[in-house]
Amino acid sequence: MPQSAPEGYRPLAEDTVGAYLNGLAAAREALGGAPEDWTVREVGDGNLNLVFIAEGPEGGIIVKQALPYVRLVGESWPLPLSRAHYEHLALAEHNRHAPGLVPAIAHYDEDMALIVMDYLSPHIIMRQGMIKAVEYPRFADHVTTFMARTLFFTSDLALTAAVKKERIAAFAGNHALCKITEDLIFTDPYRVAEMNRWTSPQLDDIAVAFREDSDLKVAVSRLKLKFLTETQAMLHGDLHTGSIMVTAEETRVIDPEFAFYGPMGFDVGAVLANLLINYFSQDGHETPESPRDAYRDWVLETTEAVWRGFSEKFLDLWRMHATGDAYPADLFAGADGERRLEVERRAYMDRLFQDAIGFAAAKMIRRILGLAHNIDLEWIEDPDARAACERRILTLARSMMVHAESYRSIAAVTAMARKTRAG
Amino acid sequence: MPQSAPEGYRPLAEDTVGAYLNGLAAAREALGGAPEDWTVREVGDGNLNLVFIAEGPEGGIIVKQALPYVRLVGESWPLPLSRAHYEHLALAEHNRHAPGLVPAIAHYDEDMALIVMDYLSPHIIMRQGMIKAVEYPRFADHVTTFMARTLFFTSDLALTAAVKKERIAAFAGNHALCKITEDLIFTDPYRVAEMNRWTSPQLDDIAVAFREDSDLKVAVSRLKLKFLTETQAMLHGDLHTGSIMVTAEETRVIDPEFAFYGPMGFDVGAVLANLLINYFSQDGHETPESPRDAYRDWVLETTEAVWRGFSEKFLDLWRMHATGDAYPADLFAGADGERRLEVERRAYMDRLFQDAIGFAAAKMIRRILGLAHNIDLEWIEDPDARAACERRILTLARSMMVHAESYRSIAAVTAMARKTRAG
Repeated sequence: MPQSAPEGYRPLAEDTVGAYLNGLAAAREALGGAPEDWTVREVGDGNLNLVFIAEGPEGGIIVKQALPYVRLVGESWPLPLSRAHYEHLALAEHNRHAPGLVPAIAHYDEDMALIVMDYLSPHIIMRQGMIKAVEYPRFADHVTTFMARTLFFTSDLALTAAVKKERIAAFAGNHALCKITEDLIFTDPYRVAEMNRWTSPQLDDIAVAFREDSDLKVAVSRLKLKFLTETQAMLHGDLHTGSIMVTAEETRVIDPEFAFYGPMGFDVGAVLANLLINYFSQDGHETPESPRDAYRDWVLETTEAVWRGFSEKFLDLWRMHATGDAYPADLFAGADGERRLEVERRAYMDRLFQDAIGFAAAKMIRRILGLAHNIDLEWIEDPDARAACERRILTLARSMMVHAESYRSIAAVTAMARKTRAG
Repeated sequence: MPQSAPEGYRPLAEDTVGAYLNGLAAAREALGGAPEDWTVREVGDGNLNLVFIAEGPEGGIIVKQALPYVRLVGESWPLPLSRAHYEHLALAEHNRHAPGLVPAIAHYDEDMALIVMDYLSPHIIMRQGMIKAVEYPRFADHVTTFMARTLFFTSDLALTAAVKKERIAAFAGNHALCKITEDLIFTDPYRVAEMNRWTSPQLDDIAVAFREDSDLKVAVSRLKLKFLTETQAMLHGDLHTGSIMVTAEETRVIDPEFAFYGPMGFDVGAVLANLLINYFSQDGHETPESPRDAYRDWVLETTEAVWRGFSEKFLDLWRMHATGDAYPADLFAGADGERRLEVERRAYMDRLFQDAIGFAAAKMIRRILGLAHNIDLEWIEDPDARAACERRILTLARSMMVHAESYRSIAAVTAMARKTRAG
C-alpha cells in the first residue's frame, strides 16, 4: 500500500479530468459524445478528498481521488493515499453483498488513488434532505438491508476463520483512517484538544463538565477498546447520513474509506446517532410555515425501524446462511438445539444493541464537542437556538453511553429522546 | 509464508542433524569439540514436530523442526510448515518481553522450518514433575511474570493501534494452527467427532450428556466467538504444563507455535486448567507410600497464586507503562481521574478473570472428551480410577463454563474444586 505518493500520482483538476476519462472505455461509454461535450465540476463537500462529477450527452460519472492530506485541514495533516485502496476493497465487497445499494465501480486506478463510479442522479446527500424535512420512505428498509448483509457476510457467522483472518489482515494497513476515528470520536471530545470546537460560550459549561466526567470517560474508553480489539465484521466505518445518497425511491451508501474489521455496533450506532441528531436539530429549522412535528415523528419511527429492521434481517441471514465457524450448526441440530440457538441469537442481538447504543452516543457527542460537525446543527444560524438543540443531544448521549444497559429496546431510546426534548 | 514445502526443506534425522549444526557457528560454539564428538537424539514427545537434542563436550542445543503434517496423526493431516515462522516470531517477542523465561534463539532457518535454541538442562516438562508430586516454588512467580509481560506489552494498553494492527496482520496467516484450537477445544468435544476419545465405557454417559447440553454448547460457542474475534494481545496459544520446562529454580515457557492475536483469558485459563486437572489427577497417583494431601494443597495454592500474581503484575504494568492507545492517560489525569481509572482497571481484570474461567473450563473438557489427552490422567492405569478423576474435572468444568459469572474470585474456584473432589 502506498504510504507516500507513488510514481504516477498527480491530483486531477476540473480541466484535467476530461483527458483522464477519455482514456477509459467505460467512462467514454457512460458519458457519450466526445471530451469537448463533457462538463466537469469539483463537488467534494466531504472532509478528505477530491470529488468530480463529469457529465456528457449520455450521462454522468463520478471521479473520487484521494489527496495525500486531509482536505478539511490541509497539507499540515498528511493522510495516506492508500485509503483509496481500502475504499475500493470495501466498495467491491459491498457490491457483492448489497448490489444496488452502493455505487457500481467503473474503474479503479491504484497509482492515482482514484475510483471512477456511477454518478447518482437525482440523488442527494440524505442529511441535506432531512434538514428540509424530506421523508425517505424506503430508507429504513434499504439501509437495514445494507447493514445486515455487509456485516453478516463478513462476520464469523458466514466466513471460515481462515478467510476472515485474511480479510482482517487485508484491512490492517488502513490504520491511519482508524486513528482519525480513535482520536476524533473516542478521545478528543473528552480532553482539551486544539481541534475541538463547540457553540461557545453557550456550551462552555457542558464541554468542561464532559471533560471532567470520569464515568463518561471510562464509558467512552471501553467503547474505544472495543473499537481497537473486536474484529467482528468489515465495517463501513463512517456510516452517517452524509455518507448516504437518497431519492424517494433509492438509497446508496457511499464513501467506505474508513473500512476495517471492527465491532458491528459502530456502523449501526452511526445511523442511529445521525437520525437522533437530526431529530433534535428540527427545533432549529422549524418555522410557522414549516412545522416539524410530523417530521420528528417520522425520524423517530425511522430510528426504530432501523434497529428493528436490521435486527430481523440479520437474524434471518443467520438462520439461513450460517456457513461460518462461529456457532457451528451441528452443535445445535434438532428441535431443542435450534430452540436454544434461537434464544442465543436474540441474546447476541441484545449485546449488539448495547454496543450500538454506546457507539451512537459517542457519535452524537463528537459532532457537538469535537472537530467535525453536522450541517443538521451548523445550519441553525442562531447560536442560542443551536446550542439548545445541542445540549439536549449531549444530555441524551451521556445517558446512552453511561447507562447503555438501561436501554433495553430501541423504543426506550426514542422515548428518552422525546422526554429529553420536552425537557 | 510457505504453505507447502519450500525449496530447500528436508526433514532432519538423528544422523543428519550433526552435519546441519556443523554449518552454524553458534551451534559449534555451544556444543564444543567436533561433529564426531556430538550425540543427537530425537525426543519429540509433542504432537506436531521433530525435536532433536544435540550434545557435545561443551553443552547441548535443541533443534525443533516442523513437519508438513501433524506428527500425532500422520501425513493424512497436513499442517503448514509456516508454523515455524510464527513460532519464531512469537519466541523472539517473548525473548524481548520475558527474557530468561523462554529459550534463547540460536538460529532460525525459514526454508527448513527450523529453530535452533538453548537446550534446557536439567529442566523437565512440568507436567511430568507434577505427576510425581514435585513442587515448583518459583513457578507461580515466573509464569505470572511471563503472562503479564507478554500479554500486556502486546496489547492496546502498551501499543499504538497502528503497531498493533500490523502485529495482528503478521500473525493472521497462522490460521491452520488456530483452527486446531477452534475444532479440538471449542467444537469437537460437544459433537460426535471421529477423533474424540474418552475413558469408555465409564464416561459414556457424561460424553453423551455434554453433547446434548444446550447451555454448555451455547457457553462454549460464546468462548469460540471470543477466540475468533477478540484481538486483545499476542497469545502463546497453547500454555499448558506440557509447554513449560522447570527446575526448582527456573521456569521456561516453550513452543509458542499457536501464537496469534486473541483473548488474553485463553492463555491465563490454560495455566489454571492444567493445574486443576493435575489437582484432580492426584487421586489416581496417590499410594500409601506417596500420599498427596500436601501436594494437592500446593497445587491449589499455586492455582490461586497464578491468578493473583498475574493480576497484580498486569495491573502494575498498566499503572507504569500505559503507552498504548487504550485508556489514554490524559483522559484520567489528576487524583480523581486516577482513582476512577484504578476502579476501571480492576473491573477490566474482573472481566479478564471471567474469560479465564470459561477458557479454563474449555481446556479441561477437551483433555477428557476430545482428541488430545494429558498424561496427568493417561498415566492412571486403572480406568475406573481414571474415570473417577475425569468425571470430577468435567463436573467442575461444566459449572465454570456455564456459571462463570458466579465465580467472583480464584478462591471460589479452588473452593469448588475441593468441594467437587469431596463429592
